[in-house]
Amino acid sequence: MNTADYIVKKIEELGVNDFFGVAGDYNFNILYSIENNPQTRFIGCTNELNAGYAADGYGRIRGYGALVTTYGVGELSAMNAIAGSNAENIPIVHIVGIPSTKNIEKKSLIHHNFQEVNYNAFIDSYKTITAATAFLNRDNAKMEIDRVFKTLVKEKRPVYIALPEDVAVLDISERYVSSDWITDQDKLKEAGDRIVEKINNSKSPVIIGDVLVKRFDSMLDYEEFVSKSKFPVTNFLMGTNLINSDLDNYIGGYFGKLKNPIAEKCVIDSDCRIFVGAIYSDINSFGQNITNDINNDIAIYGTYTCIEGKKYDDIKMSDILEYITQRIEEKSIEAEKPNIGYKEKSAIQESLTCNYVYPRLQELFKQNDIIFAETGTVPHGIGLMKFPANVDVQMQILWGSIGWATPAAFGACIAKPNSRVVLITGDGAHQMSALEIGNMLKYKAKPIVIVFNNNGYTIERALSQDASSNFSDIVQMNYSKFARTFDGDIWATKVATEEDFDKALKVTQIMNKMCYIEACLQKLDMPKLTQDYISEIKGHKVDFSELIDIDTEQKIYEQEKIVKPEIQNIKEESIRTSSYNGMKYETVVHKSLSEDMFGEEESE
Amino acid sequence: MNTADYIVKKIEELGVNDFFGVAGDYNFNILYSIENNPQTRFIGCTNELNAGYAADGYGRIRGYGALVTTYGVGELSAMNAIAGSNAENIPIVHIVGIPSTKNIEKKSLIHHNFQEVNYNAFIDSYKTITAATAFLNRDNAKMEIDRVFKTLVKEKRPVYIALPEDVAVLDISERYVSSDWITDQDKLKEAGDRIVEKINNSKSPVIIGDVLVKRFDSMLDYEEFVSKSKFPVTNFLMGTNLINSDLDNYIGGYFGKLKNPIAEKCVIDSDCRIFVGAIYSDINSFGQNITNDINNDIAIYGTYTCIEGKKYDDIKMSDILEYITQRIEEKSIEAEKPNIGYKEKSAIQESLTCNYVYPRLQELFKQNDIIFAETGTVPHGIGLMKFPANVDVQMQILWGSIGWATPAAFGACIAKPNSRVVLITGDGAHQMSALEIGNMLKYKAKPIVIVFNNNGYTIERALSQDASSNFSDIVQMNYSKFARTFDGDIWATKVATEEDFDKALKVTQIMNKMCYIEACLQKLDMPKLTQDYISEIKGHKVDFSELIDIDTEQKIYEQEKIVKPEIQNIKEESIRTSSYNGMKYETVVHKSLSEDMFGEEESE
Repeated sequence: MNTADYIVKKIEELGVNDFFGVAGDYNFNILYSIENNPQTRFIGCTNELNAGYAADGYGRIRGYGALVTTYGVGELSAMNAIAGSNAENIPIVHIVGIPSTKNIEKKSLIHHNFQEVNYNAFIDSYKTITAATAFLNRDNAKMEIDRVFKTLVKEKRPVYIALPEDVAVLDISERYVSSDWITDQDKLKEAGDRIVEKINNSKSPVIIGDVLVKRFDSMLDYEEFVSKSKFPVTNFLMGTNLINSDLDNYIGGYFGKLKNPIAEKCVIDSDCRIFVGAIYSDINSFGQNITNDINNDIAIYGTYTCIEGKKYDDIKMSDILEYITQRIEEKSIEAEKPNIGYKEKSAIQESLTCNYVYPRLQELFKQNDIIFAETGTVPHGIGLMKFPANVDVQMQILWGSIGWATPAAFGACIAKPNSRVVLITGDGAHQMSALEIGNMLKYKAKPIVIVFNNNGYTIERALSQDASSNFSDIVQMNYSKFARTFDGDIWATKVATEEDFDKALKVTQIMNKMCYIEACLQKLDMPKLTQDYISEIKGHKVDFSELIDIDTEQKIYEQEKIVKPEIQNIKEESIRTSSYNGMKYETVVHKSLSEDMFGEEESE
Repeated sequence: MNTADYIVKKIEELGVNDFFGVAGDYNFNILYSIENNPQTRFIGCTNELNAGYAADGYGRIRGYGALVTTYGVGELSAMNAIAGSNAENIPIVHIVGIPSTKNIEKKSLIHHNFQEVNYNAFIDSYKTITAATAFLNRDNAKMEIDRVFKTLVKEKRPVYIALPEDVAVLDISERYVSSDWITDQDKLKEAGDRIVEKINNSKSPVIIGDVLVKRFDSMLDYEEFVSKSKFPVTNFLMGTNLINSDLDNYIGGYFGKLKNPIAEKCVIDSDCRIFVGAIYSDINSFGQNITNDINNDIAIYGTYTCIEGKKYDDIKMSDILEYITQRIEEKSIEAEKPNIGYKEKSAIQESLTCNYVYPRLQELFKQNDIIFAETGTVPHGIGLMKFPANVDVQMQILWGSIGWATPAAFGACIAKPNSRVVLITGDGAHQMSALEIGNMLKYKAKPIVIVFNNNGYTIERALSQDASSNFSDIVQMNYSKFARTFDGDIWATKVATEEDFDKALKVTQIMNKMCYIEACLQKLDMPKLTQDYISEIKGHKVDFSELIDIDTEQKIYEQEKIVKPEIQNIKEESIRTSSYNGMKYETVVHKSLSEDMFGEEESE
C-alpha cells in the first residue's frame, strides 16, 4: 500500500466514498488510488471552488468530505470553500497533489509556482483557515497523516495534506492508528454533576439548540435530552428543524426581538439557559441580543463544555448530553406554544411574491427531504416554516458565502442518492456557481432546484444606502434555458405567476429527473423577516415596498415566451416519453398524484 | 477626502478606471468612493475568482488592475487569481472591505468569521502570495497605503489592503506621496559598462526576450535594443510576438529541442546570451534545456540586472536597455532565418483538426488584436504563428490556471474597448469560468470567442498514464446555446467541419457584436508541438492518433442540429436587422468583405 492508497483508505473508513475535485498533473497519483479502490470514486467538478462546496455539502450529510486539488492554481481556488467548512465545522480532508520531493528540494521553477520559488507559500496560506496542515515527505508521511486525521475527527474541521508526487507512490506501513478520541471521564463527571445541580435547582430552564448538534453527531442524545427533560426548547436559525416541531415543549425558533416573543421571553427570563451546539453570530442569533456572557450559562460544544464561566475540555457533546439526561429531575414547566409555520395561502394575485412562495414551499417538503437554503434572504423565508419529520435543513449562516448552496446541494445528492434534495437559491448567488448544474446531470442527481430571480443581489440592495445602486445589479440570464444546455435529462421551467408556480411545484412531484424552476420575483421583494432584520441593523424601519419595480419583474417574465408547465394530461401511473419545449423526457407518473391531494405527504 | 477616496484616487492615477469585484456588505464604502469618482467605475463580476482574473487581464493591457472584494468569503475566492498575478508580474491592488475597527477590537462574531474569531486569518493567508499587505487602522492608513503602492509600482506584483468599514470613511491627509522609484545611477553604470564590455567582446551574442519586457513597460527600449544591435533575437513562449517577426534578425521562437533548431543552436552556441525579462519555467522555456546558471550570462529583469553571477539591484529594465543600446558596437552577425508561421492550409477533409484550425486562426488576426490563449494545448498552437504587427499575445504559462483566459479576456475588453480581443480556449477551461460571458455582454464587450470543444481536459489526458481516465472527462454542454442564454447581443454558432469553421471566421469579420464559436475537435487531437512536448516529458514518443475517438466528435456534432453560419446574403455595406436561430441581431456589413479577399487585413 502506498501513501495515497493509505490516505484514501483512511478517508473511506470515515464513510466517505466520493472524492470531489479537479484533475491536475500533480495529483494524478491520488486519482489513481481513488480509482483503484473499489469503494471510492472521483467526482470531477467544474472548478475547485465548486468542488470544495460540493465536498462541504457531502460532509454535511455524510459526516466527512474529501477534496482533491492540484498545487497552487487548484488549492487556492478552493480556499473559500474550505474556510467555510472550517467556520461551520464540516470536516473535510483536502489533499493537494504537489510536485515531487526532488523538485521541492531543488526549488525547480516548474509551472504553478512564483518566479521566486517557495514551496511553502500555499500551505502557509492554509494554516490560518484549517484545523491542521501537513506537508508530507519521504520520512514523515505516515505519522503526519495519522496526526491530522486525529484533529479532523476531534475538531470536525478541515485538514490540509500536501502530497508530493513521489511520496504519493511511496510504500507506507499499514499499521492501523485509530483517529478516534474519548471523553475525559473525570471532567465529564465534574462538569456533568455541576450542570445537573444547576438544572435541578432552576425554576425556568430553557434549551437553545443549534447546528453543532448535527455537526458533532449528537442528534439522538439531544433528542433524548429534549424529550426527557421536557424543558422548553428553541433554536437559532441554523438549528432550524433540529427537532420535531410537534413536540409539546418546542416553543418555535428564536429570532431575537423580531419574531416569536414566546421564545424570546423564555430565553431572556430563564434562570438556566442551556445552549447546545450553538453559534452566536449576528445573523444566526438575530443580532446577539443575548448580551450576557453565554459561557456563564450552560454551553455544550463538540469537544468541551462551559458552565458558569468554567471550561471543561475533552468532553464529547454526546457523552455529556447522555450523562445529564440520565440524572436530571423531570420538571413540569408551563410554556406557551406559538403557532409554528406558515398558514396555507391561496392564489390571489397574478405576480409572484415572497409572501406567497414560502408558504407554498412549506407544502412541498416531505419527510426526509434535504433542503439547501442559500445565504441571503432565503433562510429568513425557510426559518419560519413548519417541516415534516426528519427534514434536514442546511444553511451556511455564519460563513455566508453566496454561491455555496448549488454545489453543496450537488454534494448532498451524491452523499445520499435516495433522498430528495431541494435547493433554494437566488439569481445572484446561483450565477456564481451555476455551472455545477451540469455535473449534477452528469452524475444523475435529481434535486429540485428553485432559483428566485429577483434581478440582482437583493440582500445587498437592502443593506446598502441606496437600493438601486448599480453594484447590486447582475447580468440577466435565462436560467431555465441555461439549465437545458447540458448533456443530461432535466425538466426546467420559468414561472412568474402564482398559478404557474403552483403548477411547477406539482410537476416536480411526478418527475423522475432533476426539476429546475426559475421563479421570477419582484426586484426588492423579500421575506418580512429580512425587512425586520434590516430595519433593526439600520436602526429605523425600512419599507422597500414603494421601491419595488413591477416593470422589472414583468421584463424578466416577458424576456422569452415562458414555458408553462402543463400537467393535466399526466395523471395516470405510467412511464411515458414525451416532448416538451423541444426536449424529450421520460415521465414517471404517480397514481397517487391528483390535483386534490397535492401538498399532502406521499410515501416514496 | 476619505481613506477609500484616497485609495481610489491613487489607483486612478496609475491609469486604472475600472475596478472589478463583487459587492458585499463590508465593502460598500469602497464602492461608493468608486461610484463618486467621475473617472472610475465598478464592474461587478459573476464571482470573485472571475473578478480577479478580469483585473489580471485588465492589468496586462493597462499596466495596473484593481479588485474589490468583501471580507473572508470574497477575498479567499480570489486567491488563485491574485497568486497568478503575483507569479506573472501583473500589479493588482486588491482592496478588501472588512468589518469596522470596533468589531475587530471586540472580536465580534459577525458573519464571514470563524467561530474562534481571528481578524488576521485572511490577511495572513495573503502574505505569501502578494508583494505586500496592509491592515489599515485609524492611525496607520495613509502611511500604509503609500507604502504598499510603492511596492506595487516597483515590484509590479499585487498588493493587498484590508480596509475596515470605519477607516474607509475616515478623513485622510491628501499630501501627495509619489509611488515612483528611480534607478540607482552608480549601479546602472557599473552593470551597464560590464554588459557593454561583454557584448562588445563577444562573437555570437543572442537576445532571448520574454514577457517581463511587457510587464515592466520596456517594449520601446527593447525594440530599440533589438533593432540597433542587430543581434539574433528569439523569445520564450510567453514572449510570443514580443517583436515584429519581419525584423531581419528575428530567428523565430525558442522551443528547446522540439522545434526551430536555428534558434536552439543560436542560443546553445552563443558566447553571450542576453536574457531580457525572461521566465525560465518548464513550459515557458521548453523543459529548461538551458542548463547553465542563467544569471551567469546577462539577465535583465524589471528591478535588477545580473551579469556573470553578480546581481545589481535597483535598476529599471528600461534604463539599462537604453544604457547599453547607446553604447554597444554594431556587429554583423549572420543568422539563418527560419520560416515563421503556418503555411496556408486549404480545406481537405470533413472534420476539424488542430492541424487545420491554427493556420486558419493565423489568417484571422489583424494588426493591434489582443489574443488571450488559454493554458493547455492552445499556446502550442498559437506559439508557432506569424502575426501582423502589434498583435498582443497573452498567455498564463507560468501560473497556468485553467479558467483564467475567459474572464481575463473580459478584463482586456474593458481595458481597451476599441481593440479587438480574441479569446481562444478549450471546453474544460472555459467551463470553469464561462459565466463571465454574461458580463461581457452586459458591458457590451465584443470579443471573438473560440471554444475548442474536444470533450474534456485534453492536456491532462495527454499527461496521465491512461488517456481515457475518467477524471479528465467533463460534462458536455452546448456552449453555443449556453452563450445565448444571457440578456445581451451575441452571435453564437457551433461548427465541426473545416468548411463551417471557415464560414464562421468570416462571419466574425462583419459582426459588430460578440461572436462566439464552439468548434468541435476530436477527443485527443492536439497541436503537434504539444505531442512532442509530452513525449519529451514522458521520455518516449507519444502518439495519440490511434486513440482518437472519431465517434466522440461526431456525437458532439450531432448533439443538436448545428447552426450553420450563412454569409452568402450579407455582402453589401448596410446595417440590417435579421433573425438568426430565433435571435435577432444587427449586422454591419462591410463593403470590403467578399469571399475572395477574406483573410487579408482590413482597416477598421
